[in-house]
Amino acid sequence: MKARVLVRLKPGILDVQGASVKRALAGLGFTEVRDIRIGKVIDLELDGLDAAAARQRIDEMCARLLANPVIEDFTVESLPGS
Amino acid sequence: MKARVLVRLKPGILDVQGASVKRALAGLGFTEVRDIRIGKVIDLELDGLDAAAARQRIDEMCARLLANPVIEDFTVESLPGS
Repeated sequence: MKARVLVRLKPGILDVQGASVKRALAGLGFTEVRDIRIGKVIDLELDGLDAAAARQRIDEMCARLLANPVIEDFTVESLPGS
Repeated sequence: MKARVLVRLKPGILDVQGASVKRALAGLGFTEVRDIRIGKVIDLELDGLDAAAARQRIDEMCARLLANPVIEDFTVESLPGS
């Protein structure tokens, strides 16, 4: 099955990359950008697991490697057709 | 309005980060991972634009700054409640 994991900084954590991109966009004339935050998208393809088992394995992967639980949150989305 | 931009390497481009994470996951026992690709998620909040105008401005931002059109594709998703 296929799944998409979004890893983002927790709300209280300063997003230096986002702030920098926001300033760069303003410099290019995109002054309508009120807020911008940048994270990671991880597209996974897993072998031979049903949705519930896959979801549990993905949570484990995030906790152990894909996300830093101190400063990052993650959300898992199943993709249609998987 | 709020929007989510996903920036990913084009299909033909080698995803070095993804390959490295896949190997690391296999080392941790997650051998069911068949494929993994890593990109960026950019959460945008824009001032005072309707959906169509915002979509056009976001496409411009991607073309000029957020994505590298030589090696990356981007997709724009409107978020509910925006």
